[in-house]
Amino acid sequence: MFPSELPIGVFDSGVGGLTVLAALRRVLPEEHLLYLGDTARVPYGTRAPETVLRYAEGVAGHLLGHGIKALVVACNTATTWALPALERTGRDRGVPVVGVIRPGVDTALRVTQGRVAVIGTEGTVQGGRYAALLDAMAPQVTHQSVACPLFVALAEEGWTEGPVARLVAQEYLGGLRDQVDTVILGCTHYPLLRDTIADVLPGVTLVDSAESTAHATAAMLTEHGLLRRGGPRATEQFLVTDNLARFERVGERFLGRVPSPARVVDLAEADHALWHAASPEVAT
Amino acid sequence: MFPSELPIGVFDSGVGGLTVLAALRRVLPEEHLLYLGDTARVPYGTRAPETVLRYAEGVAGHLLGHGIKALVVACNTATTWALPALERTGRDRGVPVVGVIRPGVDTALRVTQGRVAVIGTEGTVQGGRYAALLDAMAPQVTHQSVACPLFVALAEEGWTEGPVARLVAQEYLGGLRDQVDTVILGCTHYPLLRDTIADVLPGVTLVDSAESTAHATAAMLTEHGLLRRGGPRATEQFLVTDNLARFERVGERFLGRVPSPARVVDLAEADHALWHAASPEVAT
Repeated sequence: MFPSELPIGVFDSGVGGLTVLAALRRVLPEEHLLYLGDTARVPYGTRAPETVLRYAEGVAGHLLGHGIKALVVACNTATTWALPALERTGRDRGVPVVGVIRPGVDTALRVTQGRVAVIGTEGTVQGGRYAALLDAMAPQVTHQSVACPLFVALAEEGWTEGPVARLVAQEYLGGLRDQVDTVILGCTHYPLLRDTIADVLPGVTLVDSAESTAHATAAMLTEHGLLRRGGPRATEQFLVTDNLARFERVGERFLGRVPSPARVVDLAEADHALWHAASPEVAT
Repeated sequence: MFPSELPIGVFDSGVGGLTVLAALRRVLPEEHLLYLGDTARVPYGTRAPETVLRYAEGVAGHLLGHGIKALVVACNTATTWALPALERTGRDRGVPVVGVIRPGVDTALRVTQGRVAVIGTEGTVQGGRYAALLDAMAPQVTHQSVACPLFVALAEEGWTEGPVARLVAQEYLGGLRDQVDTVILGCTHYPLLRDTIADVLPGVTLVDSAESTAHATAAMLTEHGLLRRGGPRATEQFLVTDNLARFERVGERFLGRVPSPARVVDLAEADHALWHAASPEVAT
């Protein structure tokens, strides 16, 4: 099989990455997509860095075992703690890797007038990758970060509008009003709360990295000669590590349709080993 | 060592069980306590039943490896899906097991005038163990169940009072007003929201199963001749499977003091096997 015929692996801790998958489908209609949501161990946002790295490598190994031509890390926390390691090993194996942070920063820097805020999980904010990238790429831009842990629970509960969502958004983001012109939605769950966030922060540009991540993926595939062109209809497959019924039910709100076909897989120690076997030091 | 000198193992998916540990300390001041919070895989509330069972058996095996004389399952979701299996294996090994559901139901039935509600996680409500027990023990009592997923996030964020907590409680529980006289707090996180819940449900008796679970544990130890009496000062130890810093920080709100000494442990397949080796069919 030509490598270009292999699917793009898309990985998230749960359902949030489906917003990225939806953007990939729009931007790359001819690509096969293989999604894995690590629903047995979601959320990654409150895990320790080394734990997130170990989980991410296990998932990457599992997807590699299925055969993928590229890996999209559609999770801000996993991108924060695991992207450099995943990129290194991916490079050795010829599987290019894209995260969601750099594309979001690129977009924010194109639209901002100089004052940016990043909102995300505890892990993403504490990890400081957005802050480090913004400092490195645009030292003249001021920025601040706000952790909004309840947003994930609100999005999964379906309470994305109405008085509760509005009050929570006001509590977290009221202090940003008139302080910033651009806010990066640094968690794949947050686009569901977009209207509520916009109400609390009128006049502020909201950056959803899903779209820019999809474009970055397209650029990467082009660069590596891995774009699929034509042939049989593009397919999608969804894997989860736990609770399929909840993934389908909650996932519909993130994808706009029921994620299907979906099934449960077990991650094993062997998956983690498989990813590491990808690096030449281990393989030889 | 006399078996009575061994600690009581107390197990929860995360920090919530610390409310039970605090009650155990009050009721059983001379007992050594060994707590394990499975913070690498919290929350159990949205996991599939068979996953919760596998996790619970792994944790039970790990605690058994440390040496415990009894096991308290201080987690409603784990009690829902794993208690019968844990009790069976525990019986074979001479390690009695207590969950949090039966003690809470006992207390509710002592105080209710006939109309009970149970509030808990999605898993606990879907599991229906409270409903089944109430039906079996008091068919004349009417009852209903309400899942309140956001309460866990509120408790961990420390937003237990104030407008957000009040609005969320109103949203979940407003419909119970004047419909019930007793509400069982069927999640170990919910006692932190007690005042807010009481505001929304004036005149309703709130049942926190922590206290009754501690008394049930005392009764069980007495019955098995396992009570510790006197000797060197009782000790406490806290084990977590991930993110020690967050456990200590958030745990303080649940325990009333920093849980200490605490350290991170790895759960291995061997722990799961150890628990199962406890059953004679496997051991012989």
